[in-house]
Amino acid sequence: MNNFTFYAPTYFSFGKDTENEAGSLVKRFGGNKVLIHYGSGSVKRSGLLDKVKKSLEKEGVEYIELGGVMPNPRSGLVYEGIELCRKEKVDFVLAVGGGSTIDSSKAIAAGVLYEGDFWDFFCGKPIEKALPVGTVLTISAAGSEGSDRSVITHENGMLKRGTGGDALRPKFSILNPALTQTLPKYQTACGITDIMAHLYERYFTTTKEVEVTDRMIEALLLTMIHEGPRVIADPDNYEARANIMWAGMMAHNQSCGVGRTQDWSSHQLEHELSALYDCAHGAGLAVVMPAVFTYNMKHDVMRFAQVAVRVWGCQMDFEHPEVTAKAGIEALRNFLISIGMPKNFAELGAKEEDIPYLAKTLCYGNGRQGTFKGFAELNEEDCINIYKMMI
Amino acid sequence: MNNFTFYAPTYFSFGKDTENEAGSLVKRFGGNKVLIHYGSGSVKRSGLLDKVKKSLEKEGVEYIELGGVMPNPRSGLVYEGIELCRKEKVDFVLAVGGGSTIDSSKAIAAGVLYEGDFWDFFCGKPIEKALPVGTVLTISAAGSEGSDRSVITHENGMLKRGTGGDALRPKFSILNPALTQTLPKYQTACGITDIMAHLYERYFTTTKEVEVTDRMIEALLLTMIHEGPRVIADPDNYEARANIMWAGMMAHNQSCGVGRTQDWSSHQLEHELSALYDCAHGAGLAVVMPAVFTYNMKHDVMRFAQVAVRVWGCQMDFEHPEVTAKAGIEALRNFLISIGMPKNFAELGAKEEDIPYLAKTLCYGNGRQGTFKGFAELNEEDCINIYKMMI
Repeated sequence: MNNFTFYAPTYFSFGKDTENEAGSLVKRFGGNKVLIHYGSGSVKRSGLLDKVKKSLEKEGVEYIELGGVMPNPRSGLVYEGIELCRKEKVDFVLAVGGGSTIDSSKAIAAGVLYEGDFWDFFCGKPIEKALPVGTVLTISAAGSEGSDRSVITHENGMLKRGTGGDALRPKFSILNPALTQTLPKYQTACGITDIMAHLYERYFTTTKEVEVTDRMIEALLLTMIHEGPRVIADPDNYEARANIMWAGMMAHNQSCGVGRTQDWSSHQLEHELSALYDCAHGAGLAVVMPAVFTYNMKHDVMRFAQVAVRVWGCQMDFEHPEVTAKAGIEALRNFLISIGMPKNFAELGAKEEDIPYLAKTLCYGNGRQGTFKGFAELNEEDCINIYKMMI
Repeated sequence: MNNFTFYAPTYFSFGKDTENEAGSLVKRFGGNKVLIHYGSGSVKRSGLLDKVKKSLEKEGVEYIELGGVMPNPRSGLVYEGIELCRKEKVDFVLAVGGGSTIDSSKAIAAGVLYEGDFWDFFCGKPIEKALPVGTVLTISAAGSEGSDRSVITHENGMLKRGTGGDALRPKFSILNPALTQTLPKYQTACGITDIMAHLYERYFTTTKEVEVTDRMIEALLLTMIHEGPRVIADPDNYEARANIMWAGMMAHNQSCGVGRTQDWSSHQLEHELSALYDCAHGAGLAVVMPAVFTYNMKHDVMRFAQVAVRVWGCQMDFEHPEVTAKAGIEALRNFLISIGMPKNFAELGAKEEDIPYLAKTLCYGNGRQGTFKGFAELNEEDCINIYKMMI
């Protein structure tokens, strides 16, 4: 196991009606004037926003609002949010929504306290400070509610890039599984896929003897395999929603990824797809994962066999471990199809003729020098081959 | 899943040589004058204490020392520590040792800022504030390095009782697996048993549909079953030590116990044994667990069968699930014996004739009214029966 540090000081309030604690939690963590940041307006229609406002009012906390966050959140709204917070002397950002809203909130929070362009942080500049952020989560997927990460798409060139840092960890996150019950099936399935991708990206490591984190990742994957189909079949199943919600947070707060190298090739390959086609991140991952795993399998067949046996219940072929490894990838692919995810470029809305552009942007964009490294090092040709496997 | 809150803001520095960060971490978390608290002196002989002091000196942090913590830490030293901290105007307590040292440090930290008798906190009074505590862990076992709990034995009546609260969470914990390599096999095995008990106590719940925490507990148990024998066979195996160390923290920081009722009968039954005989806590648990699990099995045979199949690899007997359930308990018993733990009263140094006293103290001591409740409600007669199963 590699040396590591782990620091996850987010306060979680989990369960029914916890959104009513938003006001007292903002106050507890030092907020006096809040920017409530949200998405398309579903939080208005559902009545959630009103509940949150009432809770803030009850505690005498002032607030202003900024809606309009889109999936694959954009830089334009971040710039707008930063301006607004400065003008209104906001000292706390409260995200009410899913991962996109939380990521946008984090970017605003960091940008407000920085004199330069907030995009610098997404080009490698370390984040030293940020306004405190709180979240009321409505989608189990991104894990941003418990992570120190943010992913934003810059409208200038549609570059989708991530950043991270201790300052971005939410001070508190309110997790009420009932709030996710109104989510359409497709979005629920995208969330399940995203959570599973966060686990797989940590699982494919080059670090040896990491049994504890291997086992934890497997545990969370097994949870998704059990609860995913239950919630797709019955969207009102609170218990299944609850198990997925905690698994989604644990999958990405890094406690199961410490002390080991990680992959993140699937996310890199997917980010190019959602940046270009604006497809749902989870849907993109569903198409990317089986392809990149099949391509990378040769680098450590036993690791792929391990997840096949332990997670998917495949029989180990001791003479031909690669057969077992492949069976595990097929099991994942079939699972994702069964919950309604796309299986190829056509179903995703991606185009074969864009592959050279996708591979080039990925390998040379944002200062890269022709390769990127995760579980294996991939160059432009590798990426072209992998994208072709998705046709 | 039940509603819950989760807040675990301890900063972890994990890996080789991390003890040299003690000074900078004390400073980061606001300490200017430190009480270094430790045990029998093995930290002196190993040179660890000198390293920690050097690290404090390098950062210009003042310190005083108080050694002498014993396994099953006593109230006497806590009173002494509180006096000393007040006299010397200490503002930070640094535990260098295992769970006993950390628990003693937590009790001192809470007592310094309280006008009354610190024992009040162990009789039910909520802890509102405490001096900040940091730890340099030398034994993987108690999980106190990441928990909000403390267990102390009062010398007046040898009462062993626990308390907890957010204020007791360590600000930081330094986890260097190499520091545990010098530990004798017996103590290593006691630690393994304690960690497994923390997992089992959370596993035996009456809450339904808690797949995510079930799976996480199983993952950590599987880790212990894999790494435990490796470290007993080869005490210098850093990788096995590392996996056990992170599993031990995760087993008790509560992330795998949230939203579910828990048991803790084994700990209650064991506390009476170690209070009376001063045996090692882990050794006591090894004798207690198979007995209390066999006694409690009838209340939910399928839960016992589940852990037997998923953790111990037992074949499910679908016609007679109780056969599988029992096989899982036997597998646990055999595992504990295989790592060198005692299997009965005689090997532990406990006496049959004390059983009535043990059961009475347990069910009527410390304000109890004849029963205590975990996975099942147990009265004096139940406890007598369970203790008799250990003969």
